[in-house]
Amino acid sequence: MADRHPDKTVPESAEDRLIARYFKPLAKHPAALGFNDDAAAIAPPPGCDLVLKTDGVIVGVHVFADDPPDAIARKALRMNLSDLAAKGAAPLGFLMSIALPKDVAESWVAQFAEGLGADADHYGCPLLGGDTDRTPGPAAVNIFAFGTVPHGRMVLRGGAKPGDRVVVTGSIGDAALGLALRRDASLRTRWRLDQRGHDHLAGRYLLPQPRNAIADMLREHASGAMDVSDGLAGDFAKLCRASNVAGEIDVARVPLSDAARAALAADPAMIETVVTGGDDYEILASMPASRVEPFRQAAGDAGVAVTEIGAITAGEGACLLDGNGRALRFAHPSYSHF
Amino acid sequence: MADRHPDKTVPESAEDRLIARYFKPLAKHPAALGFNDDAAAIAPPPGCDLVLKTDGVIVGVHVFADDPPDAIARKALRMNLSDLAAKGAAPLGFLMSIALPKDVAESWVAQFAEGLGADADHYGCPLLGGDTDRTPGPAAVNIFAFGTVPHGRMVLRGGAKPGDRVVVTGSIGDAALGLALRRDASLRTRWRLDQRGHDHLAGRYLLPQPRNAIADMLREHASGAMDVSDGLAGDFAKLCRASNVAGEIDVARVPLSDAARAALAADPAMIETVVTGGDDYEILASMPASRVEPFRQAAGDAGVAVTEIGAITAGEGACLLDGNGRALRFAHPSYSHF
Repeated sequence: MADRHPDKTVPESAEDRLIARYFKPLAKHPAALGFNDDAAAIAPPPGCDLVLKTDGVIVGVHVFADDPPDAIARKALRMNLSDLAAKGAAPLGFLMSIALPKDVAESWVAQFAEGLGADADHYGCPLLGGDTDRTPGPAAVNIFAFGTVPHGRMVLRGGAKPGDRVVVTGSIGDAALGLALRRDASLRTRWRLDQRGHDHLAGRYLLPQPRNAIADMLREHASGAMDVSDGLAGDFAKLCRASNVAGEIDVARVPLSDAARAALAADPAMIETVVTGGDDYEILASMPASRVEPFRQAAGDAGVAVTEIGAITAGEGACLLDGNGRALRFAHPSYSHF
Repeated sequence: MADRHPDKTVPESAEDRLIARYFKPLAKHPAALGFNDDAAAIAPPPGCDLVLKTDGVIVGVHVFADDPPDAIARKALRMNLSDLAAKGAAPLGFLMSIALPKDVAESWVAQFAEGLGADADHYGCPLLGGDTDRTPGPAAVNIFAFGTVPHGRMVLRGGAKPGDRVVVTGSIGDAALGLALRRDASLRTRWRLDQRGHDHLAGRYLLPQPRNAIADMLREHASGAMDVSDGLAGDFAKLCRASNVAGEIDVARVPLSDAARAALAADPAMIETVVTGGDDYEILASMPASRVEPFRQAAGDAGVAVTEIGAITAGEGACLLDGNGRALRFAHPSYSHF
């Protein structure tokens, strides 16, 4: 028919071509239907609950305009994977809505798609569909990630119980210090960081390491959990509020990287940045004391360090205690977009 | 604890307060967990596939900055509901990511949330979670809607077969004419529209009427379907391409409202706007000839008009034929953001 009536064929739009060139190669999962439909269709595993999350990045707000496009894509996806991990969920897939300025370079889109595809493969979380738009504002990426847990087994933010211990994965504050370094390169000298220390902090800001490897263990051991994305202090307060409990974290026990220790040794006031700065994408969890060691060992076997940092009690209010048992107070306890 | 150690309590952020005030009242479904968690958890009905869709609006791009905030919210949700309907899916719920400029009026947010909540109730599609951000750009709303179909029964865009008839719901072109009126108020006089005709076209642009009432009937009768959102001509071409078939639509049979007929009588060149302008949110479907009448009757009983407008043949290429059987050609056959 196209040969007989070539003039009758309605051509594809530029939007279709951009999607076809850079995103269709990511449509590997059958549920994506090759991005040839208006929606994706997937059969969820029987007996599972769906865990649903959306989080996004706006270029210039959550990431820098000159961050590598592949890192922006990865960060946008990993922020959501981190939430699935903290809820004890296995990734099932994601949709993406992306708004691009008119003058975006095609190479930007190409690198973005390459990073997104690499992480989708690495984390077993396929891109199943999405939406592309032009925007007069900055580029913006919204990810809608969904995962599964056995029915009724999502690890809740509100599950902490008096008597529970508080644990956290990895190290806290690296990303916030990395952001500070990004904004003020002179801090590197002030903090006496070597190249490795600088790169560690900068890398932790640029590219989160979501803890999906321990999602199953959280379901097995944790009473409550959430990912630390808006700062340990504020997120711990949220966990306590949602659980209707009180809690204390001993700041001296909060796990720090060597680079963060160096920065704090040179500038002790940075402790506020460390515990309130956000972008950690570690997991904060509560669990009975008897569960801490088994959880720590299982997570360690999966390559994720776990540190006990505090305790849950009856009452309300969350605080971070210094070495003398005094509560720290912060001007901005939690990252807020408002 | 808050009373004993009020100074130790980490306060809620402004973001938390905005969410609490305007969006938490929408967290009626148990899966939303009162918006007190990082994710939603919902048990999908057994034996169902999930149908997943994301679509969004950027203020100033897809809607006008001075559109009523409740209408912007409704349109954003209804665009996605329209896709679920076209896929034969029943709504299960949605997540929303909303980016707001710093200077947004609280009354804007209040009206937006009110419209969103009203439609969530009306369409049985509860808000289960979301994300709020500040943006230096225009306000932007991304909806992630998910629905269910019996396993393997999603109505595909690529299901049209040679010999099928082509049908469409409602009327085509109203929204595109309404947009033209919105941009150039003098067209009302030129098109000799009375108040009712003007309001019909303006209303069809402002607030889509998704055809969720006939989702079940589409599954029963249609071989292929999609919603008409980017213009009948371009969307029909997409349906034919995805189905590896050719197709013809007889433009004279495309259903028009009285107001659209009036506009076309005064300005016949508007036919291009009618069939390429988009924002229709009607359903375009293919089905065997024997199914057209049963489908038309069932949809009619549900209050949705169905009109046969064309046919599918073997080959490739999609075209719209005028009264003399000549293919219409358009400068911009489909709405594209690029």
